[in-house]
Amino acid sequence: MRLTLYTDYTLRVLMYLAAKHRSGELATIDEIAQAYGISRSHLTKIVHELARQGFIETQRGRSGGMRLARPPEQISIGAVVRMAEEDFAVVACHDPKVPHGCAVFPACRLKQRLARAVEAFLAELDGMTLDEAVTTPRQAAVLLNLVT
Amino acid sequence: MRLTLYTDYTLRVLMYLAAKHRSGELATIDEIAQAYGISRSHLTKIVHELARQGFIETQRGRSGGMRLARPPEQISIGAVVRMAEEDFAVVACHDPKVPHGCAVFPACRLKQRLARAVEAFLAELDGMTLDEAVTTPRQAAVLLNLVT
Repeated sequence: MRLTLYTDYTLRVLMYLAAKHRSGELATIDEIAQAYGISRSHLTKIVHELARQGFIETQRGRSGGMRLARPPEQISIGAVVRMAEEDFAVVACHDPKVPHGCAVFPACRLKQRLARAVEAFLAELDGMTLDEAVTTPRQAAVLLNLVT
Repeated sequence: MRLTLYTDYTLRVLMYLAAKHRSGELATIDEIAQAYGISRSHLTKIVHELARQGFIETQRGRSGGMRLARPPEQISIGAVVRMAEEDFAVVACHDPKVPHGCAVFPACRLKQRLARAVEAFLAELDGMTLDEAVTTPRQAAVLLNLVT
Protein backbone atom coordinates (compact mmCIF):
# COMPACT_ATOMS: atom_id res chain seq x y z
CA MET A 1 0.00 0.00 0.00
CA ARG A 2 1.56 3.22 -1.16
CA LEU A 3 0.81 6.88 -1.33
CA THR A 4 1.89 8.35 -4.66
CA LEU A 5 5.39 9.75 -5.08
CA TYR A 6 3.64 13.08 -5.62
CA THR A 7 2.23 12.99 -2.07
CA ASP A 8 5.54 11.74 -0.67
CA TYR A 9 7.45 14.65 -2.24
CA THR A 10 4.75 17.12 -1.22
CA LEU A 11 5.33 16.09 2.39
CA ARG A 12 9.10 16.39 1.94
CA VAL A 13 8.81 19.91 0.54
CA LEU A 14 6.69 20.97 3.50
CA MET A 15 9.05 19.34 6.00
CA TYR A 16 11.93 21.23 4.41
CA LEU A 17 10.02 24.49 4.69
CA ALA A 18 9.11 23.68 8.30
CA ALA A 19 12.79 23.19 9.13
CA LYS A 20 13.59 26.53 7.52
CA HIS A 21 10.55 28.35 8.85
CA ARG A 22 12.12 30.06 11.87
CA SER A 23 14.93 31.56 9.82
CA GLY A 24 12.38 33.60 7.89
CA GLU A 25 14.36 32.95 4.70
CA LEU A 26 12.86 31.86 1.43
CA ALA A 27 13.68 28.44 -0.01
CA THR A 28 14.16 27.62 -3.68
CA ILE A 29 13.15 24.55 -5.65
CA ASP A 30 16.82 23.96 -6.46
CA GLU A 31 17.90 23.76 -2.83
CA ILE A 32 15.03 21.45 -1.90
CA ALA A 33 15.80 19.20 -4.87
CA GLN A 34 19.43 19.10 -3.83
CA ALA A 35 18.73 18.47 -0.14
CA TYR A 36 16.69 15.37 -0.93
CA GLY A 37 18.59 14.28 -4.04
CA ILE A 38 15.43 14.29 -6.12
CA SER A 39 14.76 15.77 -9.53
CA ARG A 40 13.82 19.44 -9.80
CA SER A 41 11.19 18.63 -12.39
CA HIS A 42 9.23 16.57 -9.86
CA LEU A 43 9.01 19.56 -7.54
CA THR A 44 7.84 22.31 -9.87
CA LYS A 45 4.26 21.08 -10.16
CA ILE A 46 4.13 20.28 -6.44
CA VAL A 47 5.24 23.77 -5.44
CA HIS A 48 2.74 25.32 -7.82
CA GLU A 49 -0.06 23.25 -6.30
CA LEU A 50 1.01 23.94 -2.70
CA ALA A 51 0.87 27.66 -3.48
CA ARG A 52 -2.48 27.36 -5.22
CA GLN A 53 -3.90 25.51 -2.20
CA GLY A 54 -2.62 28.12 0.21
CA PHE A 55 -0.04 25.99 2.04
CA ILE A 56 2.91 28.07 0.88
CA GLU A 57 3.64 31.59 -0.36
CA THR A 58 5.91 32.13 -3.32
CA GLN A 59 7.85 35.19 -4.38
CA ARG A 60 9.03 35.65 -7.94
CA GLY A 61 12.30 37.07 -9.17
CA ARG A 62 16.00 36.50 -8.67
CA SER A 63 15.87 36.54 -4.89
CA GLY A 64 12.51 34.80 -4.93
CA GLY A 65 11.49 31.51 -3.43
CA MET A 66 8.88 30.09 -1.10
CA ARG A 67 7.94 29.80 2.54
CA LEU A 68 5.10 28.29 4.53
CA ALA A 69 1.96 30.43 4.37
CA ARG A 70 1.31 29.74 8.07
CA PRO A 71 3.27 28.29 10.98
CA PRO A 72 3.90 24.51 10.76
CA GLU A 73 1.79 23.90 13.89
CA GLN A 74 -1.21 25.15 11.91
CA ILE A 75 -0.72 22.75 8.98
CA SER A 76 -2.40 19.36 9.31
CA ILE A 77 -0.66 16.36 7.76
CA GLY A 78 -4.10 14.90 7.06
CA ALA A 79 -5.10 18.00 5.10
CA VAL A 80 -1.89 17.80 3.08
CA VAL A 81 -2.38 14.13 2.22
CA ARG A 82 -6.06 14.65 1.34
CA MET A 83 -5.01 17.48 -0.98
CA ALA A 84 -2.04 15.76 -2.64
CA GLU A 85 -3.31 12.20 -3.08
CA GLU A 86 -5.53 12.16 -6.11
CA ASP A 87 -7.28 8.86 -5.57
CA PHE A 88 -8.29 7.04 -2.40
CA ALA A 89 -10.01 4.15 -4.18
CA VAL A 90 -7.66 1.56 -2.71
CA VAL A 91 -8.91 -1.12 -5.08
CA ALA A 92 -9.81 -0.60 -8.73
CA CYS A 93 -13.43 -1.76 -8.88
CA HIS A 94 -13.58 -0.25 -12.34
CA ASP A 95 -10.61 -1.25 -14.44
CA PRO A 96 -10.83 0.65 -17.74
CA LYS A 97 -9.73 -2.54 -19.51
CA VAL A 98 -12.75 -4.45 -18.16
CA PRO A 99 -15.98 -3.08 -19.70
CA HIS A 100 -18.27 -3.22 -16.67
CA GLY A 101 -15.70 -3.30 -13.89
CA CYS A 102 -15.58 -5.95 -11.18
CA ALA A 103 -18.28 -8.56 -11.80
CA VAL A 104 -19.30 -8.78 -8.16
CA PHE A 105 -19.50 -4.98 -7.68
CA PRO A 106 -23.25 -4.68 -6.99
CA ALA A 107 -23.08 -7.42 -4.34
CA CYS A 108 -19.87 -6.19 -2.74
CA ARG A 109 -19.84 -4.54 0.66
CA LEU A 110 -16.08 -4.50 0.83
CA LYS A 111 -15.82 -1.20 -1.03
CA GLN A 112 -17.72 0.68 1.68
CA ARG A 113 -15.54 -0.88 4.36
CA LEU A 114 -12.40 0.03 2.44
CA ALA A 115 -13.65 3.61 2.28
CA ARG A 116 -14.09 3.55 6.08
CA ALA A 117 -10.59 2.11 6.44
CA VAL A 118 -9.22 5.00 4.36
CA GLU A 119 -11.08 7.44 6.62
CA ALA A 120 -9.50 5.80 9.68
CA PHE A 121 -6.09 6.13 8.00
CA LEU A 122 -6.65 9.83 7.30
CA ALA A 123 -8.12 10.53 10.74
CA GLU A 124 -4.82 9.35 12.23
CA LEU A 125 -2.96 11.84 10.02
CA ASP A 126 -5.43 14.61 10.87
CA GLY A 127 -4.08 14.29 14.40
CA MET A 128 -0.55 15.37 13.42
CA THR A 129 0.69 18.81 12.43
CA LEU A 130 3.64 19.56 10.19
CA ASP A 131 5.41 20.88 13.28
CA GLU A 132 5.05 17.49 15.00
CA ALA A 133 6.27 15.65 11.90
CA VAL A 134 9.76 17.04 12.40
CA THR A 135 11.38 16.03 15.71
CA THR A 136 13.47 19.12 16.24
CA PRO A 137 13.82 21.88 13.67
CA ARG A 138 17.53 22.09 14.53
CA GLN A 139 18.21 18.41 13.73
CA ALA A 140 16.15 18.62 10.57
CA ALA A 141 17.98 21.78 9.51
CA VAL A 142 21.35 20.07 9.90
CA LEU A 143 20.18 17.03 7.96
CA LEU A 144 18.88 19.22 5.16
CA ASN A 145 22.08 21.28 5.01
CA LEU A 146 20.26 24.41 6.11
CA VAL A 147 22.88 24.94 8.81
CA THR A 148 26.18 23.19 9.42
CA MET B 1 -3.49 5.28 -2.32
CA ARG B 2 -3.79 1.77 -3.69
CA LEU B 3 -3.52 -1.79 -2.57
CA THR B 4 -1.65 -3.89 -5.12
CA LEU B 5 -3.53 -5.63 -7.90
CA TYR B 6 -2.34 -8.85 -6.25
CA THR B 7 -4.31 -8.03 -3.08
CA ASP B 8 -7.30 -6.85 -5.11
CA TYR B 9 -7.44 -10.14 -7.03
CA THR B 10 -6.85 -12.16 -3.87
CA LEU B 11 -9.99 -10.59 -2.42
CA ARG B 12 -11.92 -11.28 -5.62
CA VAL B 13 -10.92 -14.96 -5.61
CA LEU B 14 -12.09 -15.32 -2.01
CA MET B 15 -15.35 -13.49 -2.72
CA TYR B 16 -15.97 -15.87 -5.60
CA LEU B 17 -15.32 -18.86 -3.37
CA ALA B 18 -17.58 -17.37 -0.68
CA ALA B 19 -20.41 -17.05 -3.21
CA LYS B 20 -19.89 -20.68 -4.22
CA HIS B 21 -19.28 -22.00 -0.71
CA ARG B 22 -22.79 -23.29 0.09
CA SER B 23 -22.97 -25.35 -3.08
CA GLY B 24 -20.08 -27.47 -1.83
CA GLU B 25 -18.66 -27.54 -5.38
CA LEU B 26 -15.06 -26.89 -6.27
CA ALA B 27 -14.12 -23.84 -8.34
CA THR B 28 -11.43 -23.71 -11.00
CA ILE B 29 -9.00 -20.95 -11.87
CA ASP B 30 -10.52 -20.82 -15.36
CA GLU B 31 -14.02 -20.12 -14.14
CA ILE B 32 -12.84 -17.42 -11.71
CA ALA B 33 -10.75 -15.78 -14.44
CA GLN B 34 -13.76 -15.83 -16.74
CA ALA B 35 -16.22 -14.55 -14.13
CA TYR B 36 -14.09 -11.45 -13.50
CA GLY B 37 -12.70 -11.07 -17.01
CA ILE B 38 -9.14 -11.16 -15.71
CA SER B 39 -6.15 -13.12 -16.91
CA ARG B 40 -5.67 -16.69 -15.70
CA SER B 41 -1.96 -16.12 -15.25
CA HIS B 42 -2.64 -13.50 -12.56
CA LEU B 43 -4.59 -16.01 -10.54
CA THR B 44 -2.26 -19.00 -10.49
CA LYS B 45 0.20 -17.53 -8.02
CA ILE B 46 -2.62 -16.10 -5.91
CA VAL B 47 -4.37 -19.44 -5.60
CA HIS B 48 -1.09 -21.15 -4.72
CA GLU B 49 -0.45 -18.63 -1.97
CA LEU B 50 -4.01 -18.77 -0.60
CA ALA B 51 -3.62 -22.55 -0.31
CA ARG B 52 -0.19 -22.26 1.29
CA GLN B 53 -1.58 -19.81 3.86
CA GLY B 54 -4.50 -22.08 4.69
CA PHE B 55 -7.33 -19.90 3.36
CA ILE B 56 -8.35 -22.41 0.69
CA GLU B 57 -8.09 -26.13 -0.02
CA THR B 58 -7.14 -27.36 -3.46
CA GLN B 59 -7.72 -30.71 -5.09
CA ARG B 60 -5.65 -31.89 -8.02
CA GLY B 61 -6.76 -33.77 -11.08
CA ARG B 62 -9.30 -33.46 -13.82
CA SER B 63 -12.24 -32.83 -11.52
CA GLY B 64 -10.03 -30.82 -9.19
CA GLY B 65 -10.35 -27.25 -8.04
CA MET B 66 -10.52 -25.23 -4.87
CA ARG B 67 -12.83 -24.25 -2.06
CA LEU B 68 -12.58 -22.18 1.11
CA ALA B 69 -10.74 -24.04 3.86
CA ARG B 70 -13.22 -22.68 6.41
CA PRO B 71 -16.60 -20.93 6.31
CA PRO B 72 -16.49 -17.32 5.03
CA GLU B 73 -17.66 -16.00 8.42
CA GLN B 74 -14.38 -17.29 9.86
CA ILE B 75 -12.14 -15.48 7.38
CA SER B 76 -11.12 -11.95 8.32
CA ILE B 77 -10.67 -9.41 5.52
CA GLY B 78 -7.93 -7.80 7.59
CA ALA B 79 -6.03 -11.09 7.78
CA VAL B 80 -6.33 -11.54 4.01
CA VAL B 81 -5.05 -8.02 3.26
CA ARG B 82 -2.18 -8.38 5.77
CA MET B 83 -1.21 -11.63 4.08
CA ALA B 84 -1.51 -10.47 0.47
CA GLU B 85 -0.11 -6.95 0.60
CA GLU B 86 3.63 -7.23 0.61
CA ASP B 87 4.54 -3.76 1.74
CA PHE B 88 2.78 -1.33 4.07
CA ALA B 89 5.48 1.33 3.90
CA VAL B 90 3.13 3.94 2.46
CA VAL B 91 6.00 6.27 1.62
CA ALA B 92 9.39 5.21 0.29
CA CYS B 93 11.79 6.63 2.89
CA HIS B 94 14.51 4.54 1.28
CA ASP B 95 14.48 4.91 -2.47
CA PRO B 96 17.08 2.52 -3.93
CA LYS B 97 18.08 5.29 -6.37
CA VAL B 98 18.98 7.64 -3.51
CA PRO B 99 22.03 6.30 -1.60
CA HIS B 100 20.99 7.14 1.96
CA GLY B 101 17.26 7.47 1.50
CA CYS B 102 15.26 10.51 2.54
CA ALA B 103 17.61 13.20 3.89
CA VAL B 104 15.35 14.11 6.79
CA PHE B 105 14.77 10.47 7.85
CA PRO B 106 16.43 10.65 11.31
CA ALA B 107 14.46 13.77 12.25
CA CYS B 108 11.16 12.55 10.83
CA ARG B 109 8.27 11.52 13.07
CA LEU B 110 5.89 11.18 10.18
CA LYS B 111 6.92 7.60 9.46
CA GLN B 112 5.73 6.39 12.86
CA ARG B 113 2.43 8.20 12.43
CA LEU B 114 2.00 6.72 8.96
CA ALA B 115 2.57 3.27 10.48
CA ARG B 116 -0.19 4.01 13.02
CA ALA B 117 -2.43 5.19 10.20
CA VAL B 118 -1.86 1.89 8.38
CA GLU B 119 -2.76 0.03 11.58
CA ALA B 120 -6.00 2.05 11.84
CA PHE B 121 -6.73 1.12 8.22
CA LEU B 122 -6.16 -2.58 8.88
CA ALA B 123 -8.08 -2.54 12.18
CA GLU B 124 -11.13 -1.41 10.23
CA LEU B 125 -10.72 -4.40 7.88
CA ASP B 126 -10.15 -6.76 10.82
CA GLY B 127 -13.74 -5.96 11.73
CA MET B 128 -15.15 -7.49 8.57
CA THR B 129 -15.40 -11.14 7.58
CA LEU B 130 -15.46 -12.53 4.06
CA ASP B 131 -19.09 -13.45 4.68
CA GLU B 132 -19.94 -9.81 5.39
CA ALA B 133 -18.05 -8.63 2.30
CA VAL B 134 -20.67 -10.21 0.05
CA THR B 135 -24.18 -8.80 0.50
CA THR B 136 -26.12 -11.93 -0.31
CA PRO B 137 -24.54 -15.11 -1.63
CA ARG B 138 -27.48 -15.46 -4.02
CA GLN B 139 -26.93 -12.06 -5.64
CA ALA B 140 -23.19 -12.61 -5.81
CA ALA B 141 -23.70 -16.05 -7.34
CA VAL B 142 -25.89 -14.61 -10.09
CA LEU B 143 -23.38 -11.84 -10.82
CA LEU B 144 -20.57 -14.36 -11.03
CA ASN B 145 -22.56 -16.69 -13.30
CA LEU B 146 -22.62 -19.42 -10.68
CA VAL B 147 -26.38 -19.71 -11.10
CA THR B 148 -28.72 -18.18 -13.61
